[in-house]
Amino acid sequence: MSDNVVWHSHPVDQQARAEQKQQMPLVIWFTGLSASGKSTIAGALEQILTQQGYHTYLLDGDNVRHGLCKDLGFSDNDRKENIRRVGEVARLGADSGLIILAAFISPFREDRRLVRDILPKDQFVEVFVDAPLAVCQQRDPKGLYAKVERGEIKSFTGIDSPYETPQAPEVHIDAQALSVAESINRLLEYLHQAGVLKAGYEPVAVSA
Amino acid sequence: MSDNVVWHSHPVDQQARAEQKQQMPLVIWFTGLSASGKSTIAGALEQILTQQGYHTYLLDGDNVRHGLCKDLGFSDNDRKENIRRVGEVARLGADSGLIILAAFISPFREDRRLVRDILPKDQFVEVFVDAPLAVCQQRDPKGLYAKVERGEIKSFTGIDSPYETPQAPEVHIDAQALSVAESINRLLEYLHQAGVLKAGYEPVAVSA
Repeated sequence: MSDNVVWHSHPVDQQARAEQKQQMPLVIWFTGLSASGKSTIAGALEQILTQQGYHTYLLDGDNVRHGLCKDLGFSDNDRKENIRRVGEVARLGADSGLIILAAFISPFREDRRLVRDILPKDQFVEVFVDAPLAVCQQRDPKGLYAKVERGEIKSFTGIDSPYETPQAPEVHIDAQALSVAESINRLLEYLHQAGVLKAGYEPVAVSA
Repeated sequence: MSDNVVWHSHPVDQQARAEQKQQMPLVIWFTGLSASGKSTIAGALEQILTQQGYHTYLLDGDNVRHGLCKDLGFSDNDRKENIRRVGEVARLGADSGLIILAAFISPFREDRRLVRDILPKDQFVEVFVDAPLAVCQQRDPKGLYAKVERGEIKSFTGIDSPYETPQAPEVHIDAQALSVAESINRLLEYLHQAGVLKAGYEPVAVSA
């Protein structure tokens, strides 16, 4: 029995998947303290990008901590392994041609470096969502800082576990000075200049 | 400072991502002995689907064992954890709107059941690539069965580690009787009947 199949000898690769989606695959990695606004900004950016025709996927604690990483806790080692696995999934997502948005505290420089290093050059954008600890403590939307205060949570980033500030992030967002809309416009501007966005994009409306 | 942003209040969900790609998200899970033809069939099906405009991604040992699962070996527990993680990544991939093809020996029924159970209903298609052990041993493209014979590999599926045959796979491929092209046509026919493929599809050319 001989075959005369029509498929190419080349397997489908990242380039083919990206061309199909008419976009550059990318990992946009949001790092910052708990309650700094990472997930809000990442989720809003995803909505804008999707509206403009880009194929995206958002990775955050919600869809990872209960599944892929549900065996992990919050010790230093488990945090490292959490970020390692998320980084590998982000790599697979970019390999599939998607623009991956990842929003994780990811407090350690070495771990963020590891994610950058497993990705092809120019496919990792580090976004530092920079809000002072006092602001995050005041916001405290999940009541986590209050729990830390009451001694119910240990090893909390910024309190009794370190947050290592990014030294040269591709985008630095002053989350105290900028609104969410302004943060998104900063990101769109960066992505535009980096050639990720097709020529022309609509900034998000920002009222004064 | 008030915002007047244009994004929707609803985050981007699986349905939105799937509609953008004009397809039904799905995990097509290939199980079978080493050298049964899983990866070959899965890779060829991916090429056909991509040619026909579907957005796919192939997960197999090549892109997982060196990354996401590089900390795992081949003990029963590590095999289970390997399949668990791959299942979670497949779930994220389907959640992103893609058609995920996964090709893993995945010898244990319970592990395959676990993957089925974490996916939304009708988003898991189990494909049993059924080749007799003797045929796989004869093919032995990676020389693995020969290594087992020489005692260089232990706990090898089908030899000294069990393969639990699927009891009710969505698709059963007799890999001894069917060529790769015929196997693909069987799969395309199934996907067509299941409503996954848009009306009309081109079968792969099979010479007699």
